Amino acid sequence: MTAKQFELNGTHYQWPTKPIVVVCVDGGDPSYLEACLKAKATPTIARFMRDGFYAVADGSIPSFTCPNNMSIVTGSEPAVHGISGNFFLDPDTQEPVVMTGPELLRSKTILSEYARLGAKVVTITAKDKLRLQLQKGIELGDGNMSFSAQHAASCTEAENGIDNVTALTGMAEPDMYSAELSLFVLEAGVKLLERDRPDIMYLSLTDFIQHKYAPDEEPALAFYRDVDKCIARLAELGAIVGITADHGMNDKATDDGQPNVIWLQDHLDEALGRDQAQVICPITDPFVAHHGALGGLVRVYLKSDGQLDQAMATIRNIEGIESTWDRASAARIFQLPADREGDILVISDTNTCIGARASDHDLSGLEGHRLRTHGGLSESKVPFILSHRLNDAYWSKAAGGMLRSHQLFEFAINGTT
Amino acid sequence: MTAKQFELNGTHYQWPTKPIVVVCVDGGDPSYLEACLKAKATPTIARFMRDGFYAVADGSIPSFTCPNNMSIVTGSEPAVHGISGNFFLDPDTQEPVVMTGPELLRSKTILSEYARLGAKVVTITAKDKLRLQLQKGIELGDGNMSFSAQHAASCTEAENGIDNVTALTGMAEPDMYSAELSLFVLEAGVKLLERDRPDIMYLSLTDFIQHKYAPDEEPALAFYRDVDKCIARLAELGAIVGITADHGMNDKATDDGQPNVIWLQDHLDEALGRDQAQVICPITDPFVAHHGALGGLVRVYLKSDGQLDQAMATIRNIEGIESTWDRASAARIFQLPADREGDILVISDTNTCIGARASDHDLSGLEGHRLRTHGGLSESKVPFILSHRLNDAYWSKAAGGMLRSHQLFEFAINGTT
Repeated sequence: MTAKQFELNGTHYQWPTKPIVVVCVDGGDPSYLEACLKAKATPTIARFMRDGFYAVADGSIPSFTCPNNMSIVTGSEPAVHGISGNFFLDPDTQEPVVMTGPELLRSKTILSEYARLGAKVVTITAKDKLRLQLQKGIELGDGNMSFSAQHAASCTEAENGIDNVTALTGMAEPDMYSAELSLFVLEAGVKLLERDRPDIMYLSLTDFIQHKYAPDEEPALAFYRDVDKCIARLAELGAIVGITADHGMNDKATDDGQPNVIWLQDHLDEALGRDQAQVICPITDPFVAHHGALGGLVRVYLKSDGQLDQAMATIRNIEGIESTWDRASAARIFQLPADREGDILVISDTNTCIGARASDHDLSGLEGHRLRTHGGLSESKVPFILSHRLNDAYWSKAAGGMLRSHQLFEFAINGTT
Repeated sequence: MTAKQFELNGTHYQWPTKPIVVVCVDGGDPSYLEACLKAKATPTIARFMRDGFYAVADGSIPSFTCPNNMSIVTGSEPAVHGISGNFFLDPDTQEPVVMTGPELLRSKTILSEYARLGAKVVTITAKDKLRLQLQKGIELGDGNMSFSAQHAASCTEAENGIDNVTALTGMAEPDMYSAELSLFVLEAGVKLLERDRPDIMYLSLTDFIQHKYAPDEEPALAFYRDVDKCIARLAELGAIVGITADHGMNDKATDDGQPNVIWLQDHLDEALGRDQAQVICPITDPFVAHHGALGGLVRVYLKSDGQLDQAMATIRNIEGIESTWDRASAARIFQLPADREGDILVISDTNTCIGARASDHDLSGLEGHRLRTHGGLSESKVPFILSHRLNDAYWSKAAGGMLRSHQLFEFAINGTT
């Protein structure tokens, strides 16, 4: 390879000298690492943290899956890449829609830029919803691949740049709600690294386990043990491995085990009159059984601008609300695209979540588990782990303040050689 | 020493096996470390960061000197220790007063608890204003000492537990506005560690240099070089050294070099009527030449509760304001004592500061320097450095999320053995 390089969103990326693998552990709150270190469940990750690099970094707000995956692969924040939720109220149609369409992504990706310059790029995601944005701008085939564990059995060369993924991994297509959905991603990554040695891999897991189990519960530790074994194999195969999370995870249930929910639509209906405000829950995606579309951040759209101050005061005074932002403030402080923001952005505190109306949320999927979910500031701290020590330039950069998870590709590529 | 121990504010403290020295580098923003590492100005601190422990931690809000020093020595936040500014509006008298009185401190300190159990405890502060709170509950004499560089020449056994401090250091009593005011603290610490080997030392510097110079300016690097030499001697003498800062520091001047100020009293007078609101700048202390009492956080007191929503909306819409909080929200989110909070807490963004009225602030002390100051969230990230590696228990604790600077004593004492 020649010394090709590029700049994207203000960051300069060198050409990788070894395969780079970035793993996004969906819902991988730092508290899971704490429990894993205590239980000695993850010897390889523990070694990276001691001998490579470890910091707690800031993820993007909202601390949801779509915005953060896009931050990581674009090296930018939602104000730049445009993906500010899993779900939003389309300002043109006024309809609530999923935010997974590639046309909504406003930035090139680090992945597509490397592919454009001739690197072999592989992206694998647990849930198919991320796939089209992850592969945007990448010409698939000839070593470039993009697929999901969710649709592993139906991959084709034409659609994904690879077929027969279940044969590659020796695993059946996993269930949507399973640990295997994540482990399939990692196993496919290991097998492809071994077989094809791509230059850049992005492996994005799912947070089924973290929504369901607290860090010290055995199924969580067992999941991390399995993740760690795959990470070990990636490292043994000579990759520089970076690990982060899209968001953290907190218990948001009451003492008696019920979800600790603010039904915000009810509060606003009472204060402003019925349906004068519309609550949108941007955690929503087509698969919500494990959290019932309850998260730590919602957007409110008002029929009348004149009700803004009253609505904000109403929300501010509800117990469990952490902060309330008008559109301009929200966009400024959280680096969000103002044109995709609500009139009010509302964030709940660590142990509280926000829904619209009780009737809008199906909580049967919790199956008696305590609600664990995310979306707010309390879930925006994520691990930032590298298998290799930082060089002097990046070590001094790391010393200079909070890192952002969107810097992980940069640090993995520029910072370890 | 027997294995004495105690609990304070929910944290259990072991008995130190080596002398513990915690250094609070006033205004020691992580960006100074970045510049120092780049310039190789601080070899000892750099070694601690690589071979001991380094993280960026959250300091207390407001990011001012008094609250954060008290957080560090009590292992708690202002909601517990009560010191929520350098300066506040006394709710009983309605008079603005400094917050340095020991009667305002609502917690025992780690220092006083060790002293009570028989440890030898030394606190040295650059500016005398912190001294009475730092020594609260400590019976001075018989090895326990508390003094300031500011009043070094007039220390007495009776008042400070030590006299002749200038002879000890071989330095004259330094000027209030000088790098020497900090270096004197460190030099005295080194000499006392060598001579008396106290069990616990707390060395609190001043931010004269950081207010005046950006991280990559030579006087800042020179200051850190000198600091590093003292730190090296503390380590050579066998201490476990912890280093943090009370707050960070940001440039808050415009392109043409003038302070980038929001004169908030003027805005509120215009919106609500003259003197319906009172702006209190809690950065204020008796020595403000280097920042003109302009900081990143102020409190607003209203004559009438009925104007709260209007006042908050007015403030929210001013360019450069980052966030606005009513009393209850501010107390909750920033762990502040509600009874010492204003009606509104106002925080400006990274490059903006807030004053009352122009006529209330004397900016002549800036002497043409760009205004660098602190107080808000942008200046609340601080270094968290230890000379020694963490044991497994504290390493897993550190992995679990953002550290607080108030945990530094705990980590230095419990986490390194």
